[in-house]
Amino acid sequence: MKLKVKEMDIATGGTLIAILNKDDAQKLDLHHEDRVRISFKNRSTRAVIDIATKKRLVPKGKIGMMQEVLDKLKVKGKDSVEIDIEEKPISVHYIREKLDGKELSEEEINAIVKDIVKNNLSAIELTYFVSAAYTKGLSTKEIICLTKAISKHGDQLELDTFPIIDKHCSGGVPGNRTTMILVPLLAAAGLTIPKTSSRSITSPAGTADTMEVLADVCIPVPEMRNIVKKIGACMVWGGAMNLAAADDKLIKIRHPISLDPKGMLLASIMAKKTAVNSSHVLIDIPVGKNTKINTILKAKKLGKDFVKIGKKLGIKIKVIITDGSQPIGNGIGPALEAKDVLYVLKNDKNAPKDLKEKSLLMAEQVMKMIGIKDARSKAEYFLESGLAYKKMKEIIKAQGGDPNIVPSKIKVGRYTHSVKAKTSGTIHSINTRTISKIARVAGAPKDKGAGIYLHKHVHDHVDKGDILFTIYAENKQRLKYALHILRIFDGIDYS
Amino acid sequence: MKLKVKEMDIATGGTLIAILNKDDAQKLDLHHEDRVRISFKNRSTRAVIDIATKKRLVPKGKIGMMQEVLDKLKVKGKDSVEIDIEEKPISVHYIREKLDGKELSEEEINAIVKDIVKNNLSAIELTYFVSAAYTKGLSTKEIICLTKAISKHGDQLELDTFPIIDKHCSGGVPGNRTTMILVPLLAAAGLTIPKTSSRSITSPAGTADTMEVLADVCIPVPEMRNIVKKIGACMVWGGAMNLAAADDKLIKIRHPISLDPKGMLLASIMAKKTAVNSSHVLIDIPVGKNTKINTILKAKKLGKDFVKIGKKLGIKIKVIITDGSQPIGNGIGPALEAKDVLYVLKNDKNAPKDLKEKSLLMAEQVMKMIGIKDARSKAEYFLESGLAYKKMKEIIKAQGGDPNIVPSKIKVGRYTHSVKAKTSGTIHSINTRTISKIARVAGAPKDKGAGIYLHKHVHDHVDKGDILFTIYAENKQRLKYALHILRIFDGIDYS
Repeated sequence: MKLKVKEMDIATGGTLIAILNKDDAQKLDLHHEDRVRISFKNRSTRAVIDIATKKRLVPKGKIGMMQEVLDKLKVKGKDSVEIDIEEKPISVHYIREKLDGKELSEEEINAIVKDIVKNNLSAIELTYFVSAAYTKGLSTKEIICLTKAISKHGDQLELDTFPIIDKHCSGGVPGNRTTMILVPLLAAAGLTIPKTSSRSITSPAGTADTMEVLADVCIPVPEMRNIVKKIGACMVWGGAMNLAAADDKLIKIRHPISLDPKGMLLASIMAKKTAVNSSHVLIDIPVGKNTKINTILKAKKLGKDFVKIGKKLGIKIKVIITDGSQPIGNGIGPALEAKDVLYVLKNDKNAPKDLKEKSLLMAEQVMKMIGIKDARSKAEYFLESGLAYKKMKEIIKAQGGDPNIVPSKIKVGRYTHSVKAKTSGTIHSINTRTISKIARVAGAPKDKGAGIYLHKHVHDHVDKGDILFTIYAENKQRLKYALHILRIFDGIDYS
Repeated sequence: MKLKVKEMDIATGGTLIAILNKDDAQKLDLHHEDRVRISFKNRSTRAVIDIATKKRLVPKGKIGMMQEVLDKLKVKGKDSVEIDIEEKPISVHYIREKLDGKELSEEEINAIVKDIVKNNLSAIELTYFVSAAYTKGLSTKEIICLTKAISKHGDQLELDTFPIIDKHCSGGVPGNRTTMILVPLLAAAGLTIPKTSSRSITSPAGTADTMEVLADVCIPVPEMRNIVKKIGACMVWGGAMNLAAADDKLIKIRHPISLDPKGMLLASIMAKKTAVNSSHVLIDIPVGKNTKINTILKAKKLGKDFVKIGKKLGIKIKVIITDGSQPIGNGIGPALEAKDVLYVLKNDKNAPKDLKEKSLLMAEQVMKMIGIKDARSKAEYFLESGLAYKKMKEIIKAQGGDPNIVPSKIKVGRYTHSVKAKTSGTIHSINTRTISKIARVAGAPKDKGAGIYLHKHVHDHVDKGDILFTIYAENKQRLKYALHILRIFDGIDYS
């Protein structure tokens, strides 16, 4: 059937969607979410169809195309394309079977992941896959297959060295920027650590957001490989390099109802480690009221799963369960956190003790894992001797930043608001969730200088009128929004 | 936050969706699928947000609105609206709990159904609900609550009489138009049967599509009530009257991977019966290779569930399991089926015996159910005396049709193609799925005159060259498409 293209001024951000008029759809007996093949000149693509209920939107004889389809076929409004019936991808059938509780084979999981990456599955179909993984669970075998498939259908670093170190944190602790201290420290000790990190999704800053204050983090795979070969480490944004393309699309489906099917979570994390050839991975599971993993029991269980999956993938895993009850460091938000990191690396008096101590603990654990003796004192040596800082400068330089940047010169938001103690006493707890929300609304992580600086931590004594924390924003409006949120939450549970 | 409206040339057919620019979304820390409240003058609405990744689609300072949102707020491009953060509906939380296997309370199910009807839930959230119902199952209590909620959040007929008869068929048999014989027959016998039917989704014709050949089927509830009060029966399209609004939206989610969570299916059917106050319902479950219920065992199990749910709702249920291995009647498609129906009612020599026999059987069962003696002979009497036909003429007239319509004058498609037997022998089977597909592609149900006429049935003897079936289409192009499908399926398994 020949139809004329109508450009739809909208993008799905993934799935290839075309919209048919009701009458045209009926001609080929097509329903909502059925598939068609659209051909134009020597190009063709599969697309999921949606059916317009109002004539005005897509008139008879036309086919509405979302941006992704227009781009893929390189067509414009009024071009004439050929439409034919296309079967649904076989992966839809596998998803159906998983909903019935069937254990999927390597081939079947591979087909699903391939279709996810190729944007062949609709949001509804992806949701069924996430639901199936959640309600029916994934077996160890399925998790391994999913890990391999996600890794396979993305880029690979292909580094030819051993050992290759990596780390992962299950998240939920604002300011927890140990990676940026651990990586140069371990590289200074001669280890290889090609670190890819994520940007924040719901926190005020991810490691990639914070590192970006000091250097470029969008580095293509070949350049990343060169940097790591030369100086043993890097700190880049994983999202720029397509290391686990399928994963991003699954997260978009999981996020709306905060659904984290355990097997999918494990596969997502391990796929990224597999893609960079890691041999040893340190997993940090902070436990606190507002962390993702909020009980020691759950943390232990998850830790065991990591070790088990790691074994099957030939990756050695060490798990540490840490205190996630309050923020780590003083700064929250990219610039404020970058300052903290540099203070620690430079052994400056402004260095937050908790951030330094946690980084040392982690370095010690990694060193122990690969059989280095006197791990603790060696970790201290590489940090306190300035060798870790020297390595950090090499990394910053290699990633196009200014290696001589001075922490006090890092720009923070000029619009500030300080919250003072209304009474004297001792800080009992800090609500990390509210802290995160306010820092985000103040502009973090996008506005690098936005965030919160904590003047007081849990167990600190305060006198009435002492500053508890300061909100930073890069513009007035954002500060106003942040104060609005502060009011909504009626203070910050800083008690 | 104030934003200017950008009209998006697209409708979701349900969910209220607004699109924000990435930067604006970040100002309020909003993510994909979060909610906002949009206010304009004294109107306001909740909407699900989507985040534009390309600036061009929704520039900073603008908010893209799908048709449904534009209509609801009565705004136009460049109007200035106020946006604020809005919590997700609590029903999203209940759906999450159901995924974890929790049994939902009446109140919780009610909240979900209410939000479905109000278009407050996104396709992803609805999919999670369907998945949860499928993988975790619905308890009898939940099915009852879901039935009541669907019925409550739709229109009600409110008829004050007893008994009120209804029937339902689980589907999958082309040509199976017993309803149009059963309804006038039972009404002729003095019973009340306010029949609402569906249009076809995947079959060549639903009862509503076929009845529409003879009369109007889009009848508002008050008029339907008047007709039933006056003549005891009607045959209208349920979809025109919002009797189970939530149901249509759930079907749209279930259809793409043909997922029929049993509890949801039962609730969907029973909600429509509850909405018309039925006291006695006959359930026909045809079993054949291509029917929805394809084994006797499954049919018996489903039958028991119907009886159980019916008991709890105070509705008496009688289940019959029938032969669904081949089409019923000769005509397939609205006009061709309407002719068959009239032939049976008029006791014409062209009346298909199987359609007449099945209708009599069903009438007998209903009469028995309500305690009428000599049910079989009474059923035969009302049909063969012409009283059923007389009642049918009353119904047609009441619904604005021509009561004196002659079956041979009903217009069928002028483009035809007859398929002949290639060898002599006996018909062993007819592939009902392929028959349906071809009839649909030929134009049924939308083109009333399109479809297939079966000259031969299973067990019939044929000589080489005998016509097996004829395809009817209203235009050349459609006939061409149908023949294309016929070739794809390599004949029609008419063996």
